[in-house]
Amino acid sequence: MKVKLGGIPFVYPIPIVLAGALVQGRPNFETLGDVGIMGINPAIVYISSGKRHYTNLGILEHGTFSINFPHTELLPRTDYCGTVSGHNVDKSELFDIFYGQLKTAPMIQACPVNLECKVIKEFCIRHRQVFVGEVEQTYVSEEFVIDRSGKPGIADMTKLDPIIYALDNRYYRIGESIGVGYDESKKLRLHKTSD
Amino acid sequence: MKVKLGGIPFVYPIPIVLAGALVQGRPNFETLGDVGIMGINPAIVYISSGKRHYTNLGILEHGTFSINFPHTELLPRTDYCGTVSGHNVDKSELFDIFYGQLKTAPMIQACPVNLECKVIKEFCIRHRQVFVGEVEQTYVSEEFVIDRSGKPGIADMTKLDPIIYALDNRYYRIGESIGVGYDESKKLRLHKTSD
Repeated sequence: MKVKLGGIPFVYPIPIVLAGALVQGRPNFETLGDVGIMGINPAIVYISSGKRHYTNLGILEHGTFSINFPHTELLPRTDYCGTVSGHNVDKSELFDIFYGQLKTAPMIQACPVNLECKVIKEFCIRHRQVFVGEVEQTYVSEEFVIDRSGKPGIADMTKLDPIIYALDNRYYRIGESIGVGYDESKKLRLHKTSD
Repeated sequence: MKVKLGGIPFVYPIPIVLAGALVQGRPNFETLGDVGIMGINPAIVYISSGKRHYTNLGILEHGTFSINFPHTELLPRTDYCGTVSGHNVDKSELFDIFYGQLKTAPMIQACPVNLECKVIKEFCIRHRQVFVGEVEQTYVSEEFVIDRSGKPGIADMTKLDPIIYALDNRYYRIGESIGVGYDESKKLRLHKTSD
């Protein structure tokens, strides 16, 4: 039996990120769960931000933004960046910052992974502004880089310890690994009534 | 010290969903991590699907699609739907299906939460087709509906037990709750060197 709850964008769980932009010469960071993948190769991602949000001004000015993935130790500062607007509060001193090849996308040193993005599409939908970006470069803190069959790769999720959010307004951490992609289906007996 | 790994769309963790569409009269489901929120009120979500994917045909035909959130017990079938294409394999018998008010967006009974979506924007970017949908109705299985201050709400993440994926090609489950939104920032002493 299904219960109708009205139109809720209940996508879960939600990755929590800090979207970065350079606004009037200062780095600004906005906490967002409205983020996701649009393509793997080439690497395309998006963020959706309220039309009047301060971060948008910097993204429009430079055509660049960053996506920074905080670990759970950064939860207080991450939560904070979602409670105050750059229109009213200078958030430029909250984190140690670095810049990459695009020069105008501020990134957070303390975040294990940073995506440096160039805007390739922008549109407004209802009261949101959506920025679609191609990932020009992915930066990983040295201690989270591991060897994957002779090539540098990113440590597993439990080490990256990301902040996860849900529409019950709670933050969660990641749990244990439960399987391998394109492998779990081998456990399936292909008859609807069999499992 | 940061290490450059090239352009990787490393958004993490990734929610794993089954996107549903009615293709030539039969329900079809595609496993996707390319899904996210674009707006809360009104409720707007998107999925990004390979241009030639079978599911797209049904979404274009009817202007509707569904997003279904499997729990971890559905992992083998969920993984399976990501390994075979509706072009070659009939996936219509894998799940018990129901339809909602839009009539053409097949939804999976066994998934705790289902979003019934109407396409409000569609575009291609590189080799992907992106469907932006307004959530017309959210369906929750009765056993996952709880009372939230006198109104029906959705159970917490640990009960919903969603499937999470990462670009290390592993599936994960959700971990424990670590805080409350807009509350954790109160633990912050507002000086960069203080924490």
